[in-house]
Amino acid sequence: MIKAKGYAAQSAKSPVSPWTFERREPGPHDVQIEILYCGVCHSDIHQVRDEWGGSIFPMVPGHEIVGRVTKTGDHVKKFKVGDLAGVGCLVDSCRVCDNCKDGLEQYCLNGMSGTYNGYEQDKKTPTYGGYSNVIVTNEDFVLHVSEKLPLENVAPLLCAGITTYSPLRHWKVGKGHKVGVLGLGGLGHMAVKFAVAFGSEVTMLSGSPSKEADAKKLGAHKFVLTSDKKSIDSVKGYFDFIIDTVSAPHDYNLFLSLLKTNGVHICVGAPPTPTEIMGFNLIMGRKSVAGSLIGGLPETQEMLDFCAEHNIVSDIELIAIKDIEKAYERMMKGDVRYRFVIDMATL
Amino acid sequence: MIKAKGYAAQSAKSPVSPWTFERREPGPHDVQIEILYCGVCHSDIHQVRDEWGGSIFPMVPGHEIVGRVTKTGDHVKKFKVGDLAGVGCLVDSCRVCDNCKDGLEQYCLNGMSGTYNGYEQDKKTPTYGGYSNVIVTNEDFVLHVSEKLPLENVAPLLCAGITTYSPLRHWKVGKGHKVGVLGLGGLGHMAVKFAVAFGSEVTMLSGSPSKEADAKKLGAHKFVLTSDKKSIDSVKGYFDFIIDTVSAPHDYNLFLSLLKTNGVHICVGAPPTPTEIMGFNLIMGRKSVAGSLIGGLPETQEMLDFCAEHNIVSDIELIAIKDIEKAYERMMKGDVRYRFVIDMATL
Repeated sequence: MIKAKGYAAQSAKSPVSPWTFERREPGPHDVQIEILYCGVCHSDIHQVRDEWGGSIFPMVPGHEIVGRVTKTGDHVKKFKVGDLAGVGCLVDSCRVCDNCKDGLEQYCLNGMSGTYNGYEQDKKTPTYGGYSNVIVTNEDFVLHVSEKLPLENVAPLLCAGITTYSPLRHWKVGKGHKVGVLGLGGLGHMAVKFAVAFGSEVTMLSGSPSKEADAKKLGAHKFVLTSDKKSIDSVKGYFDFIIDTVSAPHDYNLFLSLLKTNGVHICVGAPPTPTEIMGFNLIMGRKSVAGSLIGGLPETQEMLDFCAEHNIVSDIELIAIKDIEKAYERMMKGDVRYRFVIDMATL
Repeated sequence: MIKAKGYAAQSAKSPVSPWTFERREPGPHDVQIEILYCGVCHSDIHQVRDEWGGSIFPMVPGHEIVGRVTKTGDHVKKFKVGDLAGVGCLVDSCRVCDNCKDGLEQYCLNGMSGTYNGYEQDKKTPTYGGYSNVIVTNEDFVLHVSEKLPLENVAPLLCAGITTYSPLRHWKVGKGHKVGVLGLGGLGHMAVKFAVAFGSEVTMLSGSPSKEADAKKLGAHKFVLTSDKKSIDSVKGYFDFIIDTVSAPHDYNLFLSLLKTNGVHICVGAPPTPTEIMGFNLIMGRKSVAGSLIGGLPETQEMLDFCAEHNIVSDIELIAIKDIEKAYERMMKGDVRYRFVIDMATL
């Protein structure tokens, strides 16, 4: 076994703090990665605090992992020692169901193995995430990362990036489309960058007037203040798509009224409580409310390659791991532009 | 003006009863139709009783109209006296908006003119529906009806038919798809017939065990009793599409669990109250909840032609117009197989 250092939550009540634990030695198809940076996802907080239920403790959070390959199993073909590598939200899946065969491992019908707060495919070995110095992952769930981009800014692409890239690709969002992005956080700022890169007209929908300048800086063409009736009324029936990154409860019916005929409201964030929808708001205009979960492995690689080619990365604030709880507090207030990334050298 | 006979509700509290009123003389582009049959839609009850708000009284309900052309305006090109003709849920629209230009008049951005309980495009002349002996309609909103099919059984195609045909076509439902039809009423029985005709495997989802035999007779391949956990569990993650025809409140989350990855829950009926949806139920499997409203004029004609070619009609119970209130009472109990149609000779 490999002695790993990391930060873990020991229970839903305890802070995320130093912990040593064991990783498996790399098997024939495994890649051992020295973790250099790990992004801090909002879902880390939910899971650490067991707000979604069923959390597994001790928990080493983190699923926006980038680093360098330090060891490879005998049968590893895709990676060699010294390569940059990334690990996202999943580290394994059944590989035999229809979804796995289609490269939609995130929807594995037999249950994918989350990078942390989950179990390996044996359904009993807990998985530990990226707030750590090392990870050992089957090469099929490891991504190639370009040397061209600043590595710390790449980390959030593994979750915030693919979560917004995937639905935009799935719904073929591109030139001629009007896209609203609801919420300017880790997901929202990536949604703006991708939708702009795909040629759409992008409007930031936000409740904070202070975000207007930032949204424009990120490339958004328009800004709509959701708390202002006049501003909202100016985009009634306007959008082909709304990418909804907000995980606090909010009024879906209001945003359905901003969609064109055939418009789609795509949730990539979701409130923990049910949302009320009036059926008539869907029927009058053949509208849809849809959801999308991260992305499969092939699409995640495609996204990373696209980012390298188009020089797209996440805007980040680099932190030391000892400041993780402070980072959580700031995230709870929406005070981060736009992703905290842990410099693992500080471990 | 033309003196028309009909049945109308004078207020939300009064029964639908005999009334004489005036129709316009046919203008150059109008077709005058002697109404022979008119279907009774569930929405007639909601509107007569002002359950959706904003009802306009007196109200002559009815938007499943078939009859014979008795007069044509000088510029009418599509119809001649003696032709069979149908009028569905709308009698006009702005004709200039993007949706009208796309043949999606039901989503007219300037407001379509409903066949009854609406206004002509002047936004002040009330429209009166099919519980009547005659209607005068612009030829662009009149459909050709085949002489091959029993005319009384064609009437419900103008609403129940197109309402289910349109979403099945829009979402390209066909061979290889597993389709669930929720609710076996006027809409549900047409959804079964069309989905079967399009080559899908069709499952009737119903809370009434008594509907199983009927569903099979209509062509459904499977029957699932929604009140039975074992029966429901047998179709978890099973359907590509669910056509939801139920307008009473019901648990959308349950039906989302029956969808496959990428599955779509399509509402053609909608409860008058909001429905609670858990965002995670959309995200986990890239599922959608969508709505669809009747169909545009080109697609309604396509549907009627398809029905003539494939010998598809509605199952009906023919009634005299004096029995309309009794019919409403039976409909409220779901006691109709599957559409009441008024024989207008009884007026």
